[in-house]
Amino acid sequence: MQDNCFDIALEGGTLISMSAGTGIIDDAFIGIVGENIAKVCARKDSKCAAFQASESIDASGCIIMPGLVNTHTHLPMVCFRGMADDLSLMEWLTKHIWPAEMRFVNKKMVYDGAMLAMAEMILSGTTTFCDAYFYEDSIAEALSAAGMRAVVSQGFADFFMPDKKKADRMMAKARAFVERWQKHAPLITPAYFCHSPYTCSPSTLVTVKDAARESGIQYLIHLLENKDETDIILKRYGKKPVDHLLDLGVLDERTVAVHCNWLDQKDIDVFADLGVKVSHNPESSMKLAAGVAPVPAMLSKSLSVGIGTDGCASNNDMDMFREMDTTAKIHKVTSLDPTVMNAETVCQMATIGGAKVLGLDTFTGSIEEGKKADIIFLDMNQPHLTPLYNCYSQIVYAARGADVRTSIINGKIVMKDRRLTTIDVQAAMRNVRSVAADIMNHNVR
Amino acid sequence: MQDNCFDIALEGGTLISMSAGTGIIDDAFIGIVGENIAKVCARKDSKCAAFQASESIDASGCIIMPGLVNTHTHLPMVCFRGMADDLSLMEWLTKHIWPAEMRFVNKKMVYDGAMLAMAEMILSGTTTFCDAYFYEDSIAEALSAAGMRAVVSQGFADFFMPDKKKADRMMAKARAFVERWQKHAPLITPAYFCHSPYTCSPSTLVTVKDAARESGIQYLIHLLENKDETDIILKRYGKKPVDHLLDLGVLDERTVAVHCNWLDQKDIDVFADLGVKVSHNPESSMKLAAGVAPVPAMLSKSLSVGIGTDGCASNNDMDMFREMDTTAKIHKVTSLDPTVMNAETVCQMATIGGAKVLGLDTFTGSIEEGKKADIIFLDMNQPHLTPLYNCYSQIVYAARGADVRTSIINGKIVMKDRRLTTIDVQAAMRNVRSVAADIMNHNVR
Repeated sequence: MQDNCFDIALEGGTLISMSAGTGIIDDAFIGIVGENIAKVCARKDSKCAAFQASESIDASGCIIMPGLVNTHTHLPMVCFRGMADDLSLMEWLTKHIWPAEMRFVNKKMVYDGAMLAMAEMILSGTTTFCDAYFYEDSIAEALSAAGMRAVVSQGFADFFMPDKKKADRMMAKARAFVERWQKHAPLITPAYFCHSPYTCSPSTLVTVKDAARESGIQYLIHLLENKDETDIILKRYGKKPVDHLLDLGVLDERTVAVHCNWLDQKDIDVFADLGVKVSHNPESSMKLAAGVAPVPAMLSKSLSVGIGTDGCASNNDMDMFREMDTTAKIHKVTSLDPTVMNAETVCQMATIGGAKVLGLDTFTGSIEEGKKADIIFLDMNQPHLTPLYNCYSQIVYAARGADVRTSIINGKIVMKDRRLTTIDVQAAMRNVRSVAADIMNHNVR
Repeated sequence: MQDNCFDIALEGGTLISMSAGTGIIDDAFIGIVGENIAKVCARKDSKCAAFQASESIDASGCIIMPGLVNTHTHLPMVCFRGMADDLSLMEWLTKHIWPAEMRFVNKKMVYDGAMLAMAEMILSGTTTFCDAYFYEDSIAEALSAAGMRAVVSQGFADFFMPDKKKADRMMAKARAFVERWQKHAPLITPAYFCHSPYTCSPSTLVTVKDAARESGIQYLIHLLENKDETDIILKRYGKKPVDHLLDLGVLDERTVAVHCNWLDQKDIDVFADLGVKVSHNPESSMKLAAGVAPVPAMLSKSLSVGIGTDGCASNNDMDMFREMDTTAKIHKVTSLDPTVMNAETVCQMATIGGAKVLGLDTFTGSIEEGKKADIIFLDMNQPHLTPLYNCYSQIVYAARGADVRTSIINGKIVMKDRRLTTIDVQAAMRNVRSVAADIMNHNVR
């Protein structure tokens, strides 16, 4: 009998489990106990015939799928959404983004921005994300309140002015940050983030990687976002960026390379050998005119590739459904081959693939017994989702964030019928509008 | 006093008029009389201080903008949404789309598909569209019921088997179609659509253009969607597609060339000289791996370029907000230049630019006194639209169809607070699901 007692029971709907073993189940049943998925089966399955549940949710007419995994973003940049668009990269950075960051980024702005960004993410189907910014303690605090799953990455960038004392101080703070939050894993998982090979000295890249290895955490780095990064690193070190990182010994299966728009086949082979993970952010790279990552070549070498929205200053939204649609389409058109990436592959990248990139695939990214309950429901009874021939096609090419009706993270209902249960949306918007009003008054835009 | 009597008064909100004269008005007032916009001003403007209106709509917290203009679609193909994706063009066409069309396209399917597609379009902010398919009478009938504005284009494709008698019969039917619907202009405007230079013989291309000229209507043609079209036409006629059409005399300011992915600079110069219009369908061309149209080069020659979603079998949605986002981003990344197309330009293409393409710019595409009242409201009080620095950026990069709260077409409220007033959405979905069930039972997918 105890086997059939659940805290939450989800009944009906079509389950897209993203687990090879479970596949797709029509008229599904999911039983949740505490944080965990305790039972997954078809409703007609006798094992679920008699059950007790504190809360039961009717999912008929819905697709039930794992919550989406956004593998790269900078939450507080939501405060800069639409502040300065359609500009050259250098004008955007030096005249708008950096001055705004210098003046306005503080603990409160980071917390407020993170809260609004999390509202947007839950409302559009994301349950797990990876953030990289400053004041990651504030992100983690906002995260605790909102009840999302995330990797929070403490950022490093020394701009080649390595000050040993300062570096030691930063590293000590970062270690304390990791220690503080590591006990909240796998809901909150700390990580390190070296900004890039062109903003971090070799000693910083290596020191941080050593510390990451010590703590067994992910090590993120922006890599080859723009074409000219190769020339910069070649000029500085006499080798290309991936070779530079390879020689420094910072590439392994816990390294997440973000963007990778200008990776060549040799680089992909190196990544495949070492198990380096990739975060693909197509919309940001399109909007910044940075380039298109060779994802089909990566997938054919079995690299783990996840999808990310990047920060809101360069996208300008955090809707992973849009990002899936764009992922499928951009690789078809750049290769002039519509078979190069199908909808199911893209769904995998946005769920279990992303979870692998973040080192969280034993906990999330698919719906199977024993995993944490990170689950979203899409309301399929809508004109733009009619008719339904193929669930993967519908999810990738027709669904959008606004179709997510209900969301469960770590066994807790964080959105029900489009209402958030953990975030005060009006307050979150008010707080960010107040940051934006300050920015507008100070003319940095 | 009579000057201040309106059927509908819209009060508050930020008006993005897309009219050079009116620009952007904060806290706006719009007065509608019958089908027409009678008054546009700021609410504080004394001219609007005392007014009477049968219905008053509070638009505070909204962006008010012209309804979007979808310059190219095939409505009934909504029945094939997601039926066969991620395939090579020839497999898609010959094994799936053409067999399904042969067996399942009839007047009822066209009517039912059109109704669902119109529900989707209104729900995502489109007020005017241009359709091209078979049984256009059924489209026009559905259109009359739904109250949208559209150009309905009767299709021609002789596949190089010109049968004079059959051709005469088709032309007579097409003339009757035009005569029947021309009296409903500018709400329903008939047009002719020659499928392409590779499916229509020269005599059909010329005969149909002559008839279009006689009736003073638009003449649409798919052109250079795929790279190999140039080789096909070169082989057949010894000249490239645009030269072929130029020599046939079918290019003028009432010709709308759809796709144009492989137009070269010389072709663009020809179009500029003759005033040929272009419909740009980026998402469809990405998904089919057809190519990317050289839109920045077209705009620099002052061509009229509108945006279209194409049919639902190749997109797979009709959300013009998504299409705007993709338009801006795809040209930035293919040129590696983020300044190549800004958000305001994209907004123009999706509104007044599209209206110009369809020959309807004296009636729609912008909000100004004397034009027809085709107006949408975006609910800006949402996390993903917060904060607001720049309306154009927000519309193009962050807004989505689901943000449209209310829609007015030709002075009539067709959607209020997300509820359609002219279409029975549940019936529309049911009817298309029944078509899809037939298709699934017959194994053409």
